[in-house]
Amino acid sequence: MISYNEALDLIYNEIGKINLGTEEIDLTESLGRVIVEDVLADVDLPPFDNSAMDGYAIKYSGVRNRNIIGEISAGNYKEFTVGDNDAVGITTGSKIPEGADSVIPIEDVKVENNILLINDNAVFKRGINVRPKGSDLFKDNVTVCKYTKINPSVVATLASCGKEKVKVFEKLKAGILVTGDELIPITEIPSGDKIRASNNYGLQSAFQSINQEPIDYGFLNDDRNIIKEKVKSILSLDIDIFVTTGGVSVGKYDFMKEVFEEAGVTKIFWKVNIKPGMPFYFGVYETINKHILVFGLPGNPVSTLVNFYIFIEPVIRKLMKQRAKDIYTATLQNGIKKNDGKKHFSRGIIVSGIDGWEVTAHSSQSSGNYFELGNANCLIITDEEKQNPKKGDLVKCILI
Amino acid sequence: MISYNEALDLIYNEIGKINLGTEEIDLTESLGRVIVEDVLADVDLPPFDNSAMDGYAIKYSGVRNRNIIGEISAGNYKEFTVGDNDAVGITTGSKIPEGADSVIPIEDVKVENNILLINDNAVFKRGINVRPKGSDLFKDNVTVCKYTKINPSVVATLASCGKEKVKVFEKLKAGILVTGDELIPITEIPSGDKIRASNNYGLQSAFQSINQEPIDYGFLNDDRNIIKEKVKSILSLDIDIFVTTGGVSVGKYDFMKEVFEEAGVTKIFWKVNIKPGMPFYFGVYETINKHILVFGLPGNPVSTLVNFYIFIEPVIRKLMKQRAKDIYTATLQNGIKKNDGKKHFSRGIIVSGIDGWEVTAHSSQSSGNYFELGNANCLIITDEEKQNPKKGDLVKCILI
Repeated sequence: MISYNEALDLIYNEIGKINLGTEEIDLTESLGRVIVEDVLADVDLPPFDNSAMDGYAIKYSGVRNRNIIGEISAGNYKEFTVGDNDAVGITTGSKIPEGADSVIPIEDVKVENNILLINDNAVFKRGINVRPKGSDLFKDNVTVCKYTKINPSVVATLASCGKEKVKVFEKLKAGILVTGDELIPITEIPSGDKIRASNNYGLQSAFQSINQEPIDYGFLNDDRNIIKEKVKSILSLDIDIFVTTGGVSVGKYDFMKEVFEEAGVTKIFWKVNIKPGMPFYFGVYETINKHILVFGLPGNPVSTLVNFYIFIEPVIRKLMKQRAKDIYTATLQNGIKKNDGKKHFSRGIIVSGIDGWEVTAHSSQSSGNYFELGNANCLIITDEEKQNPKKGDLVKCILI
Repeated sequence: MISYNEALDLIYNEIGKINLGTEEIDLTESLGRVIVEDVLADVDLPPFDNSAMDGYAIKYSGVRNRNIIGEISAGNYKEFTVGDNDAVGITTGSKIPEGADSVIPIEDVKVENNILLINDNAVFKRGINVRPKGSDLFKDNVTVCKYTKINPSVVATLASCGKEKVKVFEKLKAGILVTGDELIPITEIPSGDKIRASNNYGLQSAFQSINQEPIDYGFLNDDRNIIKEKVKSILSLDIDIFVTTGGVSVGKYDFMKEVFEEAGVTKIFWKVNIKPGMPFYFGVYETINKHILVFGLPGNPVSTLVNFYIFIEPVIRKLMKQRAKDIYTATLQNGIKKNDGKKHFSRGIIVSGIDGWEVTAHSSQSSGNYFELGNANCLIITDEEKQNPKKGDLVKCILI
């Protein structure tokens, strides 16, 4: 069975052929999206020499008493020529008048009869409290680099560059199809051996959480022909990713692998040496003008979401030119039972402690346990060769 | 001047009077929202004893050769009574038949002529690979606690509990008004001493990023009467938070404090011993049926967003019953110039290094520097008494 790292590499091998579309969207709608162009400053930043403080603009010299010849506030520039004995009242951000080169803060002066008296203890040197034109960035330099993920600071920066519209990667369209004879709609009350179909909800919000576009095709019971027709029809639609859950194990009804093959999907691998989520399937569907990544996930809700976090999210980050998620090193607060050669992704809660990160693994690591999944904020990664990590061990975690 | 911690406490004192509304929304729209009810399991989870593996359900005994009397797949339960010499084929998640108490995985058996042969080296004990009914959670126990922030795992858990609709806190409505004579629309090219009005864009997306509802009232130039009328009219609307930028410093045009007073806002404090963002104003507007938090931020774009992250976001987290943001301890990669008694929030880039977090402060910490703000992912916190943190020092950071 291939390892997690081998599986991830095999997926990465296939994504070069995917052509991500781009679109122009309103700046106000751009949060979380990835910009696909270098954005240049169209003016020097700041666009003019300006004051970093409220105070008085002067031409530097030893003179400590000066005539106040006027005042300038932000956006209300007035022409002055400031000589050795002059001072101009100035507010933060205002343009420095001709001749002046320094600003004495208001806290460091007294004013009497329109005469400025600079305090003896004022810090007083040429250029002080002046932000020179272009000192942040010159015109035509890059302010926001291509492939930056847009956060509020980037939005402010783009606004300051006049970008009412920004060019970003289109959202990936991810079709979701859930299968299983045991499934009933969430509006019904389970009886007998039925359970509610929750995977489409979990996966939908997982794609939403990374700013992609899920398309939910609901769930189907295990009728092979009906599922095959549905799979074929979904593959004919305009999607980039197709995720199914259920039917990839070795049971009699686990026919998704064959269904994919019959629908024209090329299998890249099936089964990975991990826990949970071992029966993970990956293939590609290619025609002349499309290239769909096909992920067949097991039906257990925990396996489904763990597979999303450890395979699908990293792949999408890579497609979107984002670096991998940070790995947190944390001190394990309890032992984890692990006596096989698989790579484990255990659910736990990580918190910031006095001496760094502390992580507590959930006591049940059952792949059917919704409750503990919903109360986890990280996956604890235990490598193949490592056995039974103990309390006090340093372990690797990724946030979920 | 009050300290950062004192300022935060003074704000926290005022938020007890705010009555957060709640609303019922679709589960599929609930990502990032805060649930305001305990959600109970309406059935045992799992709802029936079920198999953790694909394999054969047996009644535990020493017998290693058994007659296969049928099979059960998930969602296709059939009645069997499993005796000592029987086995029933079973797939993962399927209900365990009457009499059976253990499941032998398919990997550990051979099948010949409908006879099951359990391998000699199979792990073979009573209860193995069975997930008992209610082992995750019993009916009427809490699956998702009140005030949980909804992530994809929580969505899946809520779906499994049949919650098509969830009750969450309403988004806080945050009015944003930007002021300054120097401001022009972002569609124009700055000339003279004008700059583009970027703060409303930055603040809008900052509120969006924490799932609240910004309402942008655009920008106004520094006409005191016009601003006063606008402030009054905004305070009469249905908002919870009112944020302005500009006009809170000590310059001639910094009249927002007076405008707030004239509009009926009670000042709680003005100016905090921090950098950047020192001239931060906080007040409350109270009438019989409303209680609006009023934040007057300085006009510098860096100060504005830093104030958002260090005051407004923590307050909203507290209102929404969320714990404070994690503090990251990181090794500083370069020195920070700091020789005053203020608490500093320097912009930097934090990355996960081999020996933990590493943070590099931007070389320019000018509060007008958009470029470095847009390229920061954290604020480095330097306490009041600490001077000039050096390369190699451990420093505290919060992610932005």
